[in-house]
Amino acid sequence: MFDIAIIGTGPAGISAALTAKVRNKSFVLLGEKDLSLKMRKAEKVLNYPGLPATSGEKMAQVFSEQLRSMDIDITEDKITQIYDMGSFFSLQGKSGTMYGSKAVIMAMGVISATPIKGEEESLGMGVSYCATCDAPLYKGKTVTVIAYSPEEEAEARFLAEQCAKVYYIPVYKGDVSFESDNTEIVRERVTEIAPRGRQVITEGRTIETDGTFVLRAAVAAKNLIYGLDTEGAHITVDRQGLTSVKGVFACGDITGKPYQYAKAVGEGNICALSAVKYLDESK
Amino acid sequence: MFDIAIIGTGPAGISAALTAKVRNKSFVLLGEKDLSLKMRKAEKVLNYPGLPATSGEKMAQVFSEQLRSMDIDITEDKITQIYDMGSFFSLQGKSGTMYGSKAVIMAMGVISATPIKGEEESLGMGVSYCATCDAPLYKGKTVTVIAYSPEEEAEARFLAEQCAKVYYIPVYKGDVSFESDNTEIVRERVTEIAPRGRQVITEGRTIETDGTFVLRAAVAAKNLIYGLDTEGAHITVDRQGLTSVKGVFACGDITGKPYQYAKAVGEGNICALSAVKYLDESK
Repeated sequence: MFDIAIIGTGPAGISAALTAKVRNKSFVLLGEKDLSLKMRKAEKVLNYPGLPATSGEKMAQVFSEQLRSMDIDITEDKITQIYDMGSFFSLQGKSGTMYGSKAVIMAMGVISATPIKGEEESLGMGVSYCATCDAPLYKGKTVTVIAYSPEEEAEARFLAEQCAKVYYIPVYKGDVSFESDNTEIVRERVTEIAPRGRQVITEGRTIETDGTFVLRAAVAAKNLIYGLDTEGAHITVDRQGLTSVKGVFACGDITGKPYQYAKAVGEGNICALSAVKYLDESK
Repeated sequence: MFDIAIIGTGPAGISAALTAKVRNKSFVLLGEKDLSLKMRKAEKVLNYPGLPATSGEKMAQVFSEQLRSMDIDITEDKITQIYDMGSFFSLQGKSGTMYGSKAVIMAMGVISATPIKGEEESLGMGVSYCATCDAPLYKGKTVTVIAYSPEEEAEARFLAEQCAKVYYIPVYKGDVSFESDNTEIVRERVTEIAPRGRQVITEGRTIETDGTFVLRAAVAAKNLIYGLDTEGAHITVDRQGLTSVKGVFACGDITGKPYQYAKAVGEGNICALSAVKYLDESK
């Protein structure tokens, strides 16, 4: 059981981790070991105080070294669901690991994908975001995978080993590089997911299925945890980073514009201190 | 006439300046050339992303170099009053210079001094914060100077040259290093300033005076500009850094806790972008 789970290894998550460390809290920092891809891809950053005329790559390198110098490790995992257990939170990782923490800092960046019609209504009831977690429920059955990037092919392959039949619908360009006897690639635009994820309706056909997996680079914030107030793609927070769920804080791009390093770093710092205050008051 | 006047050369003001520069706005950055003293004095900072285990001194050095590399100059002045002229702001500098700008970013750090009883009621009507600016009003008259640091002795000396009589009340320990025939040092605690600054009441006596100068390291935010909402020593802002005065933004310690570099840098960045938006919309 950690004091704090920090989700995301962009500037906001890193800032939160540094401050949590200084304040002697136990925490798990969840994300990509190489830090946020979005950050690494930035070409030139002129307005981040302390790193003159830097690149995203250089910034990631400096941040990585700083984490190492403070003995902060990154746990490479993707959180697909957060359960509010009353006195603590249970975070489901794509790896299959469950993480327990008393507070949560959401810093996973903004996800722009529009949900599919019917997706959110059936979430947790036939629609899943995590193949590793929920594959056992569909052993010997038929599942449909709606995949937003080639990375998800590994997930589909794993499902194909467990299930009788897999419909794989790529929502990306380019070839699908895996095949298996029980997998059918469907190159059609999905228009709707029927209640309980039992049908996936495309422009051309209706697929009968026992369950539907929607696999994106990240899960939209409001689908991660029940009761989280959002405005569009952004989590609603106050100036202290508090969300509508007690014990859950949010920082960085996910709280809204401007999408800036300095803003993310500042909010990460505030969230860590708000979480510390929350932990102290919950004692 | 500048697009933006940025008051303060701590992390918030510097961050605002870098972003204003990147966004091609004209601005004046007002403060200490050596950057904020409070920042420079920080012994060890472990949680500022990008500058591992740094000192305030080192941070100030990096920030100074970054400003230079972006061709950003610091104008060494202290703002003693801001006037809202409707379509622009007029900022009165302690140097005697007036600065005009369309937007103002307040980033001068938090001032903890409690006002003297009666001080705020008579502000601009017999109570002044700037000797250089208002000395001419008291030529040949009697003034009282309540000074919070030895730095203010130069101001008192200047007043003694212009006025018939100066009462000098140091609110600091240590000797007063100047004397003049027409200056009387009063070592007593001030309890009240009478209406229109015409009397200064101490524990032992009542000084009759034509005007009263209250000289602190900085002017409390809410006395700098009319109509600014504050809570205690802090300026009330929303998540975009907007204050109760249109066109005036605030960031850093002056907007409240936590008093942290990362938080200040983030808010400075947000304020600059909010000011840019305000300027664009005001066109």
